[in-house]
Amino acid sequence: MFEILNQEGHARLGRLVCQRGVIRTPAFMPVGTYGSVKSMLPDEIKSLGADIILTNAYHMYERPGLSLIKGQGGMHPFIGWDGPILMDSGGYQVFSLDGLNTITEEGVKFKSPINGSEIFLSPEISINFQVDCGIDIIMIFDECPPYGCNKAYLESSTDLSIRWAQRSFHTFQNRNSDHAKIFGIIQGGEYPDLRLKSLEALLEMNFDGLAIGGLAVGEPEELRMKIINGLNPYLPPGKPRYLMGVGTPSDLLNSIAQGIDMFDCVIPTRHARTGQLFTNHGPINIRNSQYKNSNQPIDEKCRCLTCQKFSLSYLHHLDKCKEILGLRLNTIHNLYFYLNLMETAREQLRVNNFQQFKQEFLANYML
Amino acid sequence: MFEILNQEGHARLGRLVCQRGVIRTPAFMPVGTYGSVKSMLPDEIKSLGADIILTNAYHMYERPGLSLIKGQGGMHPFIGWDGPILMDSGGYQVFSLDGLNTITEEGVKFKSPINGSEIFLSPEISINFQVDCGIDIIMIFDECPPYGCNKAYLESSTDLSIRWAQRSFHTFQNRNSDHAKIFGIIQGGEYPDLRLKSLEALLEMNFDGLAIGGLAVGEPEELRMKIINGLNPYLPPGKPRYLMGVGTPSDLLNSIAQGIDMFDCVIPTRHARTGQLFTNHGPINIRNSQYKNSNQPIDEKCRCLTCQKFSLSYLHHLDKCKEILGLRLNTIHNLYFYLNLMETAREQLRVNNFQQFKQEFLANYML
Repeated sequence: MFEILNQEGHARLGRLVCQRGVIRTPAFMPVGTYGSVKSMLPDEIKSLGADIILTNAYHMYERPGLSLIKGQGGMHPFIGWDGPILMDSGGYQVFSLDGLNTITEEGVKFKSPINGSEIFLSPEISINFQVDCGIDIIMIFDECPPYGCNKAYLESSTDLSIRWAQRSFHTFQNRNSDHAKIFGIIQGGEYPDLRLKSLEALLEMNFDGLAIGGLAVGEPEELRMKIINGLNPYLPPGKPRYLMGVGTPSDLLNSIAQGIDMFDCVIPTRHARTGQLFTNHGPINIRNSQYKNSNQPIDEKCRCLTCQKFSLSYLHHLDKCKEILGLRLNTIHNLYFYLNLMETAREQLRVNNFQQFKQEFLANYML
Repeated sequence: MFEILNQEGHARLGRLVCQRGVIRTPAFMPVGTYGSVKSMLPDEIKSLGADIILTNAYHMYERPGLSLIKGQGGMHPFIGWDGPILMDSGGYQVFSLDGLNTITEEGVKFKSPINGSEIFLSPEISINFQVDCGIDIIMIFDECPPYGCNKAYLESSTDLSIRWAQRSFHTFQNRNSDHAKIFGIIQGGEYPDLRLKSLEALLEMNFDGLAIGGLAVGEPEELRMKIINGLNPYLPPGKPRYLMGVGTPSDLLNSIAQGIDMFDCVIPTRHARTGQLFTNHGPINIRNSQYKNSNQPIDEKCRCLTCQKFSLSYLHHLDKCKEILGLRLNTIHNLYFYLNLMETAREQLRVNNFQQFKQEFLANYML
């Protein structure tokens, strides 16, 4: 199911076989929170090199809801994507909708920021929802605590997430899905002992993969790398490792070097919409007046449609006129940049040159 | 240059040869006011069946301005469209930016609604701008008066537009463009005598085509058809006729029946963004809750990408979540509907069945 094709230091080249397709790792998963990767058609996402996309249980449960998705034959036909889908469980919304939710042993009651209605999610509801949607990689329902909360809170939160992991796993087993996989999520904040406690508990169940959660919530990069490094010796080598919600291009390469196989992040799509575009020399902002007259592409070496056909000047103009096409062209470029970075990482891992490549990339890349 | 391939009653099947491509008529020209047909890539517009797109001198003169467009090699390389482009002269903005402009014999002083800066357009400035942009079909600079103004105003406005037409034509001749065409614009409001006076004056110059302007500004459809009918016997048969800013699908078919060859209108693209979608039975609004659960396409017989791949239910969901992809899919469908309607009109004209087709279409089409 998960095969490691080569290893260079901690970094791994692999393939995760799902019923709907193979995920080449290291993999970046474009985010389609509401069942659409912003501005992009499914075929376009595939042709940019994505093997899998991510969507979100909280948001899809709220709108359009389970009965509608089931009525449409599941998530894949509904959104027109026939490759693997990973669904985040809604645990992250415990963090991102802070102040709008109440956590109990049973689950989380959310107050919808859209219409104020109440939404209740529990391990059972989230897992059943994901299975019913026909999701390929299901995430357990957990609590994602904010960065910087005190250890006492984190201890009880980690314990709660462990009990929810058990309920999630149990629910999943009862569903007897013939093709879905389920990933556990390691919590524990910034505390190595809590992280290990969380991991140990998850290892007692037979998860198909392990995610590191509770990061990309405001912590410094150094601390994040320390947590990943700390977990490294204890992670079972034969299972895919997914670092949730991370990150910048350098974050990705540094995390691959520490053995991470899968990533998701809104950065390439969200930044596209604020005009921030990635290049091998670092990000630029298309709103900057220095691009107004440039007939050069964003990146001379980039082979994305945007760089093949359009100038910085036109992208600057589209942004200034708030043209939808600008958002599209920016998104195409940024997603291509991320997916191509993963493709290059895989190529370099194949020939044991990843460390070298990473060093050269980071030396050129100005944050 | 303009060839009529067949005629059925007043309706004409033709082809207008431009240096950058042939425009099959009757033709619908998608509107790209700021140099982008909203949400669409040039290749996509072409593959939907458009031979030509429209852009606007006022808006492109304001942003990004002539020197930038020239620096990019002209409008075509700047926006990445290599087919013919028609540019509206800016005369329509005299109407649409009413209250923000001052009209003198020399031209029009606009106060920019974007930043309050002053923009001055005259026949000379507009025509030179269009030639400098490398435009294929140039429109004379005129005054587009609002619907319902009194005859005295319309008389002097029509005379002014005639003088501006002469200055426009003269400016164009002096530029000696090797490939561009220039169209005159018939004004005169709702008054047959003024319309004829305007037409007669234009016929004294050798325009490559004639447009009917000053319509689609709030007048009733019946009045508009009366004006077109009134002009019909006096229009030179060998020149293309362009009805500016019109209209709905039925407007288009009724106008083709009266000998119109070319159209532009923001309706398909603008309505797409408010959820109004065209079908052979009339427009529907995707926001209507009756589409929430429907796994049917917008129109079963439609062969556009949206109808081939996505359900009403998904489009309803995307609209509800304000997803950019929804705007895109709606735009693709509506533009396909308009361009396919023109394609069908041409096919039916080829076999002398247009009147029959039009009657059947209108009988099914509920406004």
